Amino acid sequence: MGLELYLDLLSQPCRAVYIFAKKNGIPFELCSVDLRKGQHLSDVFAQVNPRQKVPALKGGDFILTESVAILLYLARKYKVPDHWYPQDTQACAHVDEYLAWQHTTLRRNCLRLLWHKVMLPVYLGEPVSPEMLTATLAELDMTLQVFEDKFLQNKAFLAGPHISLADLIAITELMHPVGAGCQVFEGRPKLAAWHQRVEAAVGEVLFQEAHEVILKAKDSQPADPTIKRKLMPRVLSMIQ
Amino acid sequence: MGLELYLDLLSQPCRAVYIFAKKNGIPFELCSVDLRKGQHLSDVFAQVNPRQKVPALKGGDFILTESVAILLYLARKYKVPDHWYPQDTQACAHVDEYLAWQHTTLRRNCLRLLWHKVMLPVYLGEPVSPEMLTATLAELDMTLQVFEDKFLQNKAFLAGPHISLADLIAITELMHPVGAGCQVFEGRPKLAAWHQRVEAAVGEVLFQEAHEVILKAKDSQPADPTIKRKLMPRVLSMIQ
Ligand SMILES: N[C@@H](CCC(=O)N[C@@H](CS)C(=O)NCC(=O)O)C(=O)O
Ligand SMILES: N[C@@H](CCC(=O)N[C@@H](CS)C(=O)NCC(=O)O)C(=O)O
Repeated sequence: MGLELYLDLLSQPCRAVYIFAKKNGIPFELCSVDLRKGQHLSDVFAQVNPRQKVPALKGGDFILTESVAILLYLARKYKVPDHWYPQDTQACAHVDEYLAWQHTTLRRNCLRLLWHKVMLPVYLGEPVSPEMLTATLAELDMTLQVFEDKFLQNKAFLAGPHISLADLIAITELMHPVGAGCQVFEGRPKLAAWHQRVEAAVGEVLFQEAHEVILKAKDSQPADPTIKRKLMPRVLSMIQ
Repeated sequence: MGLELYLDLLSQPCRAVYIFAKKNGIPFELCSVDLRKGQHLSDVFAQVNPRQKVPALKGGDFILTESVAILLYLARKYKVPDHWYPQDTQACAHVDEYLAWQHTTLRRNCLRLLWHKVMLPVYLGEPVSPEMLTATLAELDMTLQVFEDKFLQNKAFLAGPHISLADLIAITELMHPVGAGCQVFEGRPKLAAWHQRVEAAVGEVLFQEAHEVILKAKDSQPADPTIKRKLMPRVLSMIQ
């Protein structure tokens, strides 16, 4: 059985999985799950992921969710270049450290920012107060400072001289606020230079292709009322 | 240089690291960081972890934070029995899947419950509304259902027939609401049986020793006002 990846490139962890598989020539069937059309709530997709979230991986009977787990699985199974997830115990530990840290920090901030600034008002027709938006931006700013000072420091990439899974998860995350129209790299030359290095390491064409959807998120059509009703509680729980 | 582990057993990820190191006979120096005394905010500890959180690991020049990264590092470096983090790609992927999932779900719920029910009112003298507490309990209940249905299913342990890092992270998490006086295992026979298996696999004496502090959390002395002022914004950000 071939490998199936269930993705919507609007989602940042899906972009990381997509770029990783493409960049490493891993053959897969792209199974699109359009979140804005509520396709993740279909019975068919519930067979793959009963938690109704993307990304998800299926290969025969084997099903896997959670982007970090999917990336590690692909890295091991397809024997990709070492730098993505180094054999060296300490370098590997630094990748793991970033992957563990980001869940409740950068990921939370970037997700909230996209929803507060674009998806709630434009797509779901739910305005967000300027105070809320300011708070969300301030939180992201604090997290970016930690990202630069504690994680990136003066290295080329998060785990050293080469790109790793940590950089991939981080950059796809940061493109969420960019899609929301925030200039996250402005006034942050260190972060901007790292962004350029990551984009170059991935390859500009693949990077742009993976980010086409998010860079057009601002043009989302308003949700159909039935879909909005179904999605609203899930969205609120996701961005709480 | 020997291995130093900076821990406070009040913290659930610290308990996981402590149990893992002890159980596998990994030699380490226990460096206590008393969170309730604000010792994590000291200059000395900032040298180890500038983000001022436990657990943290130090071995010579090498410093590592984030419990999941620390556990994976110890498992690799000290060549512990395979079942903790299996070589088998699919079994390993299921451990990774759980470790990724829990950050924003079970961990969030258990942490909030302990703070809402015990630490905020008893230790920080900040009452929490009954509505808030009810909501926190309801969230935990929903997460436990996902834990049973999607992760534990009908297996002995989360990743199959043997205990893994996933079970260790999960059980130390669940002892947080237990410490807060919640009967999480009541009415959940599957979860209760799994708890017994995990405790037996860890060893009862070690399990109890690691949980002594949390099981007495309800008797916390009120915080000194200076410490309360320093901790309050950090606590609110941690449990948001
Ligand atoms: N921790 C998961 C997060 C998965 C997730 O939250 N996916 C979102 C898109 S970014 C989703 O499918 N949301 C749909 C919903 O919950 O309704 C991962 O990294 O894979
Ligand atoms: N994701 C981290 C969480 C670390 C963490 O939040 N530790 C808490 C104790 S459970 C802490 O040190 N809090 C002190 C503070 O932030 O002031 C891990 O799993 O190691």
